[in-house]
Amino acid sequence: VISLNGHSPKRTIAVDAMGGDHAPEEIVKGAVEAHRQGVDVVLVGRIDEVRHHLSALRADLPVVDATDVIGMDEPVTSGLRRRRSSLQVAAELASSGEADGVVSCGNSAAIYFVAFSEWGTYPGIDRPAFGALLPCRNGQVLVLDVGANTIVKSSNLLQFAIMGEVYMKLAHGIATPRIALLSNGSEDSKGTKEIKEANEALRRLSVNFVGNIEGNHVFEGQADVVVCDGFSGNVLLKSGEGVVHEIFREMRKELSRDPLSKLAAAALRPAFVRLKRRLDYEEYGGAPVLGVDGVMINCHGRSKARAVTNAICLADRMVQQNLVERIGDALHHEGTETHHRRIRLRRALHLRASEV
Amino acid sequence: VISLNGHSPKRTIAVDAMGGDHAPEEIVKGAVEAHRQGVDVVLVGRIDEVRHHLSALRADLPVVDATDVIGMDEPVTSGLRRRRSSLQVAAELASSGEADGVVSCGNSAAIYFVAFSEWGTYPGIDRPAFGALLPCRNGQVLVLDVGANTIVKSSNLLQFAIMGEVYMKLAHGIATPRIALLSNGSEDSKGTKEIKEANEALRRLSVNFVGNIEGNHVFEGQADVVVCDGFSGNVLLKSGEGVVHEIFREMRKELSRDPLSKLAAAALRPAFVRLKRRLDYEEYGGAPVLGVDGVMINCHGRSKARAVTNAICLADRMVQQNLVERIGDALHHEGTETHHRRIRLRRALHLRASEV
Repeated sequence: VISLNGHSPKRTIAVDAMGGDHAPEEIVKGAVEAHRQGVDVVLVGRIDEVRHHLSALRADLPVVDATDVIGMDEPVTSGLRRRRSSLQVAAELASSGEADGVVSCGNSAAIYFVAFSEWGTYPGIDRPAFGALLPCRNGQVLVLDVGANTIVKSSNLLQFAIMGEVYMKLAHGIATPRIALLSNGSEDSKGTKEIKEANEALRRLSVNFVGNIEGNHVFEGQADVVVCDGFSGNVLLKSGEGVVHEIFREMRKELSRDPLSKLAAAALRPAFVRLKRRLDYEEYGGAPVLGVDGVMINCHGRSKARAVTNAICLADRMVQQNLVERIGDALHHEGTETHHRRIRLRRALHLRASEV
Repeated sequence: VISLNGHSPKRTIAVDAMGGDHAPEEIVKGAVEAHRQGVDVVLVGRIDEVRHHLSALRADLPVVDATDVIGMDEPVTSGLRRRRSSLQVAAELASSGEADGVVSCGNSAAIYFVAFSEWGTYPGIDRPAFGALLPCRNGQVLVLDVGANTIVKSSNLLQFAIMGEVYMKLAHGIATPRIALLSNGSEDSKGTKEIKEANEALRRLSVNFVGNIEGNHVFEGQADVVVCDGFSGNVLLKSGEGVVHEIFREMRKELSRDPLSKLAAAALRPAFVRLKRRLDYEEYGGAPVLGVDGVMINCHGRSKARAVTNAICLADRMVQQNLVERIGDALHHEGTETHHRRIRLRRALHLRASEV
């Protein structure tokens, strides 16, 4: 691979070996497979445990020791206090140039926090966003923000739209992603003040803005990027996930009610497996933190090896295709960049603390 | 039935015969069946059309003529301009005492608007809310608000909680409804300023407040009443509906891929019908407008006769059980009533117009 912009032609992805429900075993397996597929990987975690799983796989990958792990349910600020967490150390490898991107299946709040505080925003960006890829009719839809920013300004929504557009072009090869604003009605008059302002402003940009969208139309696949505040994005993401889970639960009950149902259900097993796989959020591993000065890909906490491999290969492609710079260029091109210097969450928090 | 509070022992429900995708035929059918079950009904709509369907059913019910119909996609203010719409006339019958409650399968924005402008809020209530009953594990959950109030104050959320509690007690016989606040995390620290304030305040009331809830846990049935602003409520409602729709669509595709699948699917048809019915929002006809000075029940626009009958019987029970007064009493008991006089949307709009 020939680099186009001065990056080393061979990239390295730092993988948080300790984050996720199946860490470190499945993470190590996924990393080994990604390496087989040609991606340079460095594993970060408790060195003995990680090496144990590597040797079980008769594989040899570089490992960087990190003694600490951020739990899946720890508060977001753990990232700040836990200086030797595998996630923090992985992010630092990217800061120091020893790695080019990071993949973690850990606590998503901590992932956002560490990316923001360690790398800061990319110049021109006001607030980074957490994107999530959801299954929808005929494909996937990127929803952002899904939790990082409870409250947003219309200028944040504009930046989310552009970041999402660039990501769907690069990560999913969609030439002209359709961008929509999540609202409580498809009319331009619907939504909060911020949504109405963003709707007006998006019409003036060169993105393919298809207007406001309601939750049901998101799953009908009417847009490739759905832009929203992190609160409604979280509601959309979690309710979708909840409904899928409950339907399969009900279906299992219905299909085991009597011997005939059981028999018929057995015949349909391959169909159900395909359906479940298609709807399973886990399969869509690879939620990016967008707007930070680095490539950070978050897999679902339940990810197994295959999802981890996918996420590592995705991170590798995003580094190769200069996701971060391309976002900066697009914001500049649309005239929607924020005119301030890079913000680091750590510094922002420090300033706020000193104001008290 | 002996009335406990001076209402006439026999109640009359005014039914908007023209609202909904299957109006007037299915509405008339549903009303005739409700009448057979002992509810006094008056149908409101284009008298010739309504009588035609009545005579086809060899039934005789009182009909009040209303020449106009509010379309399903008309803007909300249509209710104000269309003085002879079937919905408006039905609400006026309740104002004048000729009816005790109203049922409509029409445009839900117009339903809210007409109830608010014609009847006003019940004294002590700041903002009415639109409730929706969603299917969830082991039952149903009332979500409110689902669209009337895009922005809310914490005091509105408190009133929604109490209104929802009273409704679930009366309409669904739940002795101690579990009340939750929709948020982007179950911790008390999650959510907007308004949610945090409401969380704190709800802990001081005598309602059974179970804390913050995320979208997935709503469908797991962790609460009986989910309180939120109308924007997130709409996102929750619509995304749930969208996911159910898409899963069934995918399933139909999967189950018709090959002859064996088709055969097995045919054997499972009763199971799928049960599942679909259980998840179908239509079956949960009966979304109340709460906080207005009257009983207004909105059915899904796609409702057929059975859902209409259910909604009419529900409205009848709510009148009989004094829903409106019981909500007022509960707000007073909890000390959460608003100390202003009854508000009518029409008057509020008029005042705003005259300020300009």
